[in-house]
Amino acid sequence: MKEQWQGMTMKKLLIHNIGLLATPEGKTARGGAAQGKIRKLENAWLLANEKGLITEIGQGPAPDTFGVFTVINAGGRLVTPGLVDAHTHLVFGGWRQNEFGLKLRGASYLEILEAGGGILSTVKATRAATEEELAEKAGKALKEMLSYGVTAVEAKSGYGLDRETELKQLRAIGRLNQEGPVELAATYLGAHALPAEYKENREEYLRLLTEEWIPEIAREGLAEFCDVFCEKGVFMAEETRRILEAGKRHGLIPKIHADEIEAIGGTELTAELGAVSAEHLIVCQESGIRALAAGGTIACLLPMTSLYLGAAFAPAREMINAGVPVAVASDFNPGSCPGLNLQLAMTMACLRYRLTPEEMLTAVTLNGAAAINRADRLGSLEVGKQADMVIWKAEDLEYLPYRLGSNLADVVIKKSEVVWVNEYCHPEAAF
Amino acid sequence: MKEQWQGMTMKKLLIHNIGLLATPEGKTARGGAAQGKIRKLENAWLLANEKGLITEIGQGPAPDTFGVFTVINAGGRLVTPGLVDAHTHLVFGGWRQNEFGLKLRGASYLEILEAGGGILSTVKATRAATEEELAEKAGKALKEMLSYGVTAVEAKSGYGLDRETELKQLRAIGRLNQEGPVELAATYLGAHALPAEYKENREEYLRLLTEEWIPEIAREGLAEFCDVFCEKGVFMAEETRRILEAGKRHGLIPKIHADEIEAIGGTELTAELGAVSAEHLIVCQESGIRALAAGGTIACLLPMTSLYLGAAFAPAREMINAGVPVAVASDFNPGSCPGLNLQLAMTMACLRYRLTPEEMLTAVTLNGAAAINRADRLGSLEVGKQADMVIWKAEDLEYLPYRLGSNLADVVIKKSEVVWVNEYCHPEAAF
Repeated sequence: MKEQWQGMTMKKLLIHNIGLLATPEGKTARGGAAQGKIRKLENAWLLANEKGLITEIGQGPAPDTFGVFTVINAGGRLVTPGLVDAHTHLVFGGWRQNEFGLKLRGASYLEILEAGGGILSTVKATRAATEEELAEKAGKALKEMLSYGVTAVEAKSGYGLDRETELKQLRAIGRLNQEGPVELAATYLGAHALPAEYKENREEYLRLLTEEWIPEIAREGLAEFCDVFCEKGVFMAEETRRILEAGKRHGLIPKIHADEIEAIGGTELTAELGAVSAEHLIVCQESGIRALAAGGTIACLLPMTSLYLGAAFAPAREMINAGVPVAVASDFNPGSCPGLNLQLAMTMACLRYRLTPEEMLTAVTLNGAAAINRADRLGSLEVGKQADMVIWKAEDLEYLPYRLGSNLADVVIKKSEVVWVNEYCHPEAAF
Repeated sequence: MKEQWQGMTMKKLLIHNIGLLATPEGKTARGGAAQGKIRKLENAWLLANEKGLITEIGQGPAPDTFGVFTVINAGGRLVTPGLVDAHTHLVFGGWRQNEFGLKLRGASYLEILEAGGGILSTVKATRAATEEELAEKAGKALKEMLSYGVTAVEAKSGYGLDRETELKQLRAIGRLNQEGPVELAATYLGAHALPAEYKENREEYLRLLTEEWIPEIAREGLAEFCDVFCEKGVFMAEETRRILEAGKRHGLIPKIHADEIEAIGGTELTAELGAVSAEHLIVCQESGIRALAAGGTIACLLPMTSLYLGAAFAPAREMINAGVPVAVASDFNPGSCPGLNLQLAMTMACLRYRLTPEEMLTAVTLNGAAAINRADRLGSLEVGKQADMVIWKAEDLEYLPYRLGSNLADVVIKKSEVVWVNEYCHPEAAF
């Protein structure tokens, strides 16, 4: 009933006077759209129905319409698909700004840990928070993401590292997804770190994860994906395989945090396991790139984390040259990247990965959607796909990454509905 | 009369329940405030009068007040002085996003110039624009700066390189300063580049600049500062001295763009010329640092330009260790830094220059004010100084640079008046 009523109150949508409609095309990252192959329609219009789906795209004068419509004159501006942020740690307790000052003053990693910092401090704060508190805090971040033009977000658990807290994180994600308007894809990352209480009992943690918690999470429908931080000192490649295979048996699609600090073979597992994405990939080797290409796995790259840590940048050009589909995401988290402005990631992807503006657009729309297994529905502006889009304070695609550190999103649309307008309250400097 | 009426309608201001009031102190960068020496008052309040001046600062419960007040409960948040952006090229025609794509596709500097790009394309667009058009466009950028907490801005000419256009740029700056609320300091940068039409007649350009244009600009009160781009292939040290000495004779305070690409002796001139600031300083040598320290010259550093260009970062720590007062500014311009979010510069100043949050605060407040010769009036929260300040979505100083790419300013106050509120229309993710 609720859905029916929603359908009855939702309006059809007409956007006309679009200066440039720019979109990748295709239903998978592998299929139609090579990285950077962008359809560009000048002087365009777009129709979407009350179910939130695109019904027609054309050029020239707006068509005659009959019925109840939201009509937007885009004023000659750029329109793209809504952005997809395919890698975030959205739900957590606390922040860690105290470490920031300590690090700048030269504190070592160990000193920070001793001062109660590092990931374990976030685990502590996340365990202490209620589901409501976590959802409220994450909801604010989500609202800010929306204001930057992000209409779909992947969110990982992984700051609980015990049954109850991980369930709580995943339930908070589910609740936010229900509330909308931003759509969330939940990933179980119980293998984010070995919790302190299992330091002497690693095997028991792996057993609980694979034999108890994964089955329960899958049974309750709390996650679509299972992810492992495959890194020296965290989880080794063989452990990663074991966890992700357990996830697969229960219907969770594999993702891997791989090659962030050392290349220990995580990326090379992707093809074999059918992982939908491998993430970070800063030190990804040629063998890793070959595996990604072979498996059609999305390389989900996180330039703001490299920026924040002063680390190297992933070999994005080599990946694209090898035919690997590249997505770019924020990695929003309280430690290594307390930034959620995907537009800054877009600029950095061009400046540091040397992506062209077109390749960058594919990375934050269609390939982002593919990394969360939604490329059939999200990530491009095509008839039958969801009417998620951004009207930008820009007239061309180059302008988006060219401007540094501003918010250029103007109107954000999710499923035919205007869900965010920056026009009245936001800086107008864009152009 | 206008001023009197303004005074009569302006209200007194009380901000109470300030969780943390953080401010440098002193009337010059050299004087009271060593870099990073921050006065921190917890549970504070601040009174300012209808003339826009701070009258009292205290701790504990808010004082009783009689009269017409704007009263702000800061909700336990952080309050700092308004930010000062001491180096911008605010006024220009056009943008240059077309070069962005060309560069990423591997176009050389020469190819970009041949495609009509580079600084000369901005000169062309700036010459073609009217004063009104320039002011309107710059006004939008200024509004965006204000939304980030910037309450005073230095703005340079330098995209005209002829008499009429430089005057037009400076008049646009004057007009924006009149309009408020952001206060502008105008810098004449006729020596930004040698214009194409004087390529064969360098001496004539220098003569016009020093003997005709500087006197006229000073006479009309259109600029307070004179700046030169002292760089190999632009203006050499001896030419720089000649131009800045001409400026001084007419009352224009010297500034120098120095050591951006090659160290050709510009910084070493600062003490001798009494320059208020030297700017960029990416490749500043030990001799330059000694000169800055000897002259008490502000080193005005521009981390977003280094970020955007993928260039090195200025040796900020060496400067601070040598007692040089460091300011951090945006360098907003359409070529090497199309970014005006000073908060991003603050994060980069900590991450790349290794400034502590306290040193960073000095850099974007008191030392910025000193770089535009306004440290007697701006840049710190002290009785008698101007009531320019920011209430942040933060409870401590570390939080400001810790968060990457978000706008954390909440309420922006200029001369006792609330001039920007992000609260209702802006993301709340901050905390």
